[in-house]
Amino acid sequence: MAYNKQMTALKNKRNVIDIIRLNSPINKAEIAKMAGLSIPSVMKITDELEEMKLICSLGRGESTGGKPPEMLTFVTNAFYLIGVDIGRSRVKVILMDMGAQIYERRYMTSTATENPESFLERVADLVEEIIANADIPKERLLGIGIGMPGILNPESGKIIFSPNFMWKDVELLPVFRKRFAAPVLIENANRAMALGEHWYGVSQNVNRVLTVNLGYGIGAAMLDGRKIDRGGSGCSGELGHMILKKDGNICSCGNRGCLESISSGYAIAKTAQQEARNKNAEKILKEAGGIPEDIEAKHVFLAAEAGDMTAQTIIQEAIEYLGIGIANCINLLDPDMVVLAGRIMLSSDYFWEELKAQIGNHQMKYSAMNIRIKKGILGEEATAIGAATLPLRRFINYGASYQALVDL
Amino acid sequence: MAYNKQMTALKNKRNVIDIIRLNSPINKAEIAKMAGLSIPSVMKITDELEEMKLICSLGRGESTGGKPPEMLTFVTNAFYLIGVDIGRSRVKVILMDMGAQIYERRYMTSTATENPESFLERVADLVEEIIANADIPKERLLGIGIGMPGILNPESGKIIFSPNFMWKDVELLPVFRKRFAAPVLIENANRAMALGEHWYGVSQNVNRVLTVNLGYGIGAAMLDGRKIDRGGSGCSGELGHMILKKDGNICSCGNRGCLESISSGYAIAKTAQQEARNKNAEKILKEAGGIPEDIEAKHVFLAAEAGDMTAQTIIQEAIEYLGIGIANCINLLDPDMVVLAGRIMLSSDYFWEELKAQIGNHQMKYSAMNIRIKKGILGEEATAIGAATLPLRRFINYGASYQALVDL
Repeated sequence: MAYNKQMTALKNKRNVIDIIRLNSPINKAEIAKMAGLSIPSVMKITDELEEMKLICSLGRGESTGGKPPEMLTFVTNAFYLIGVDIGRSRVKVILMDMGAQIYERRYMTSTATENPESFLERVADLVEEIIANADIPKERLLGIGIGMPGILNPESGKIIFSPNFMWKDVELLPVFRKRFAAPVLIENANRAMALGEHWYGVSQNVNRVLTVNLGYGIGAAMLDGRKIDRGGSGCSGELGHMILKKDGNICSCGNRGCLESISSGYAIAKTAQQEARNKNAEKILKEAGGIPEDIEAKHVFLAAEAGDMTAQTIIQEAIEYLGIGIANCINLLDPDMVVLAGRIMLSSDYFWEELKAQIGNHQMKYSAMNIRIKKGILGEEATAIGAATLPLRRFINYGASYQALVDL
Repeated sequence: MAYNKQMTALKNKRNVIDIIRLNSPINKAEIAKMAGLSIPSVMKITDELEEMKLICSLGRGESTGGKPPEMLTFVTNAFYLIGVDIGRSRVKVILMDMGAQIYERRYMTSTATENPESFLERVADLVEEIIANADIPKERLLGIGIGMPGILNPESGKIIFSPNFMWKDVELLPVFRKRFAAPVLIENANRAMALGEHWYGVSQNVNRVLTVNLGYGIGAAMLDGRKIDRGGSGCSGELGHMILKKDGNICSCGNRGCLESISSGYAIAKTAQQEARNKNAEKILKEAGGIPEDIEAKHVFLAAEAGDMTAQTIIQEAIEYLGIGIANCINLLDPDMVVLAGRIMLSSDYFWEELKAQIGNHQMKYSAMNIRIKKGILGEEATAIGAATLPLRRFINYGASYQALVDL
């Protein structure tokens, strides 16, 4: 029973924090109403939060008859966070506050052939550099969150398998825990991106959200309320390996005709490279400086926008299959919102408009009729921002308790 | 706070019921340990359950040193339930106890052209007949559960759209509530089947379960612990409308190349009928008595087992796409178990073995490595049994409270 009481207290505190965070400025009577708590219960919590400097008073608001109520606001820069996005071609490290305001950023180039240990030490160097530069009191840095592609165990901090890096059984956390006093948490990059958009971005306050990460690869993550759905063995969300072309090209996973082998940035580039070698892609080749192997997805987008038919055909096929794959997810999962994010979504407006149309074409007529299809709004740094929210989410989930972070 | 305390009490009671139900015979010390409760707390609950005759004592078990402990057991026939499966070709009504022991059954033929009201009155007649025949004290009939294909609202009891019956906006519950004093609940047929297998069948005690209903159509339902995942708008689980063949045949939903248009009982029959009209399916035609329009999926299975190549080719394609569709679900949802059930699964052992192999072929190598692929064990009556558990689940979820049923 003592445990149950503690859980209830925690839940109430977490709710109050979220209500203030998402509805600032707000008065105590409004909080009490939204949280289903008595005003004295709310006051006990808000006093504590004020003492922590997580919220503050903005003075008295407008009167609705009696004495004007005191308005409270969430202090977004009460704490700072570091987010790390370990991407296949680039690593991004950011320092931000709880409102996703970015104060510092450092990028470095990834080299897939480097051994994981020395590579991760280089990433840790960047984190160190940002901390040293930022001059933030140690106790105001809540923690470091890392997003990384592949199958990983967030509890143990182990990378089980990352096809993008060809890493197997890499212990990621020890490298960082050895060097930093602040808590360090990791999560799959697609899930980190989903958490970012849900915390600060386009899917704030939405219940069931499917976030699709369209980049070098294709991944997805499903959120149900505050809960991220990792699946029974941590492997959910492999939209990139949905097979849509029974006898299609071979995919990096070993199967044939996976969505990733048709519509990913990698696949778009590969197809264009092949066309270039067959002398069918002069305009794309020109964008890439004349060397077929240098063609990237962005060159195909540039050529398509300039009216090149080959590029347009490649992109059209990518969009059509993406539309089918995402519609298949909608028919299966029935989310309230689909968020489309990732590097490809930043490439072209045409892609976005056409993809939205293709999803609509392939979705069932009578299901998920109120679904909203949205573009992510956090841009290039969505995954880094989402990663940064990992220690923040934990801090708030445990009722703004440092203990939850120290116990990691 | 009072509300929270009540919820905790409810949760404890529900847990104790489930522990006894799934582990009978069991003593109070073991229950206390499994439920994380004190022995006096457990005794308070078990006394109440004994008074309701939901559990009873089997006398003293073996001693482990001191006085031999009293062994408790769940009384599966303390209450009775009625389950209704409204299928496209047949309606099944059963009377069973809480251990899925079936005491009475009544079947009737469905006619899709009949108007919903008179059709539902005929179903209610069957229910009435069973109740009259069974001679059960009114207070021991917990309720009536109905499983029905299509998109429906379990709260209001309205069928929003059932493509199999071509029903739109049909009020189902009033017909039954008018005629019966016992509580009536409805659920989508695929979800009812999943609940059945989870309550008494192959997926008991398994956490994340994807149940696939392979019959005239193809549907799926996802359970997460005790919770059924209906999706944001009640439309989740439309595996049958996963598009797997971009320019395939047109499906009943209006799209092209849906799994249901390739691998369902309906599709298998349609393809064979076409082959028969093209004079390519003599053996199948013979099984169906010589008339192409009379060919059903079962005739194709019979011909295939007798070595007919045309039948084997049709079934092989159905299995291959089913394997892809289910592997796609596994890669996306990462369940702990997939249960394959429905009329097609009962047709042939070859189908089951080959389907298991095809799922394995198309699943990602590094994900869901411990997944279990199982055949449902409740057979023809899985949906009716699952439907019958609707009032039972509600009764137990609310701590064996009649009030929860009366409040419907």
